[in-house]
Amino acid sequence: MSSRRPSSVVIREVGPRDGFQNEPEVIATADKIRLIESLGRAGFTRIEVASFVRPDVIPQLSDGVEVLKGIHLPSTVSRMVLIPNSRGLDNALAVREYFDEASIFVSASETHNLKNINRAVEQTMADDKAMATRILDAGLKLDAVIATSFGCPYEGKIPLDRVLGLAERFAEMGATEIGFGDTTGMANPAYVSDFFGAAFERLPGVELTAHFHNTRGQGLTNAYAALEAGCESFESSFGELGGCPVPAGSTGNIATEDLVSMFEEMGVDTGLDLDLVIAAAREAQSTLGRKLTSHSILAGPVDWTGTLVDH
Amino acid sequence: MSSRRPSSVVIREVGPRDGFQNEPEVIATADKIRLIESLGRAGFTRIEVASFVRPDVIPQLSDGVEVLKGIHLPSTVSRMVLIPNSRGLDNALAVREYFDEASIFVSASETHNLKNINRAVEQTMADDKAMATRILDAGLKLDAVIATSFGCPYEGKIPLDRVLGLAERFAEMGATEIGFGDTTGMANPAYVSDFFGAAFERLPGVELTAHFHNTRGQGLTNAYAALEAGCESFESSFGELGGCPVPAGSTGNIATEDLVSMFEEMGVDTGLDLDLVIAAAREAQSTLGRKLTSHSILAGPVDWTGTLVDH
Repeated sequence: MSSRRPSSVVIREVGPRDGFQNEPEVIATADKIRLIESLGRAGFTRIEVASFVRPDVIPQLSDGVEVLKGIHLPSTVSRMVLIPNSRGLDNALAVREYFDEASIFVSASETHNLKNINRAVEQTMADDKAMATRILDAGLKLDAVIATSFGCPYEGKIPLDRVLGLAERFAEMGATEIGFGDTTGMANPAYVSDFFGAAFERLPGVELTAHFHNTRGQGLTNAYAALEAGCESFESSFGELGGCPVPAGSTGNIATEDLVSMFEEMGVDTGLDLDLVIAAAREAQSTLGRKLTSHSILAGPVDWTGTLVDH
Repeated sequence: MSSRRPSSVVIREVGPRDGFQNEPEVIATADKIRLIESLGRAGFTRIEVASFVRPDVIPQLSDGVEVLKGIHLPSTVSRMVLIPNSRGLDNALAVREYFDEASIFVSASETHNLKNINRAVEQTMADDKAMATRILDAGLKLDAVIATSFGCPYEGKIPLDRVLGLAERFAEMGATEIGFGDTTGMANPAYVSDFFGAAFERLPGVELTAHFHNTRGQGLTNAYAALEAGCESFESSFGELGGCPVPAGSTGNIATEDLVSMFEEMGVDTGLDLDLVIAAAREAQSTLGRKLTSHSILAGPVDWTGTLVDH
């Protein structure tokens, strides 16, 4: 094997933002804080905890400041917030001491960007550049995310060169981590392998993060393909919460507990306690009062002790 | 990439045996025939259609002979039946003209074999040898399956050498295809890659088939890892029907439509019409009257035309 598989990876838990945002009911602030702290105990070093979006647009996240102020996490945890625009950044910087990194974003698809945030890609890139300067000036770690990196339901295939060109511009803005989002679950493992092979060549020294959806059941396969291409940074959501459901009704993000189960079984160190990740997902299931769709919630970790008594 | 990825694969649809067997309610013979014929229209060249088990043990499959006699399939379809013992083989050979290949099996785990068919592994291998001769004498294609190839809930890890040793003995018996079953979903893609790498070296000229379960969500990943190691033959079940639910309540087989979606998106030819595979799975969902768990049933194929009008 010419695999460039790393021996360890870092997984950012995005459920408290990407997951909670997509819940039909607004989750109580105290419940959010409790669930985030459960994630902290499971060993995550990166958690996306809030987004500074307009509360009238996304009421599910309107308590971001209370969540940031309320959570008690180990000092090893880097708290990430998503910044959609300069107004959001104003609000975020007002509570700057409560988080560690900020993420700006654009969609590689012109149409998706317009529909998502009502801006042309070049307008967004100009806004992002201005925000990047302010984020770095505040002493924060700067992340950037490129949505629809692997395809767009409105535009179809997005040229690799367009995606990596945007990534290079984010790197020039000072982003030390760039995430590639498979926003509507259109990636396949052959393309992912080629994609990350090219991305690592063009973006040396930048941490590249893979964010896949499980829309057609192959989210973990895409994560594996990225891993084999050398990717060491992943995003996922506990309980398989959230993600953009396109087509309507389909699943979104890959489940953190399934990703951790796979990596740990492979001998790739995640630094996480799988039992505690599953416990956090089960706690979310109980809090939300509906059956979540991850596999490990039901199956639990692989039992290699051979102690099952009967079928 | 040093990938040994083939440009095309063959997928055996096992739902009509492995899936229907695990349904709580016995499916009407006419419904089975209709669903199998839908699969035939989707382009499958291999379908597992029946098992000659005792009707008092598995009433779900007691109409095997009627199904075999009733189905009308294109001549390109090889109809496979599972043979558990010599009595089952007697019954199968009585209707020999209605099928094309027969599969014998053993579990690599002594404990699993005992619990599954109440025989020691060596007793089973002796029985299988006698049955292999009769199957070949009848002019049928001989397949062999090794269950728990990637781990056993009773015994834990199963040494690779033990599994491949059994495979070599099946090849000596005249099996031209040997399937490796991840009966309780314990495989991981790193092990699968190593496993098939070693298997292809030790079993030249034998067709090796991968049969994975989606117990912890990584069934498709294991299929991809096998593909990258050169595997060209797979088994899966439409609608994600069936498979051994260990731990109880967990999912079993990987979904054919999700596997086809992944391979076709990668540019690996399955010879199947994905729309018709999904249609067959939706028909099964309708016949069974419950929501099935495959992703593609809900999401449909990837739409690269970019024609989605809105979220």
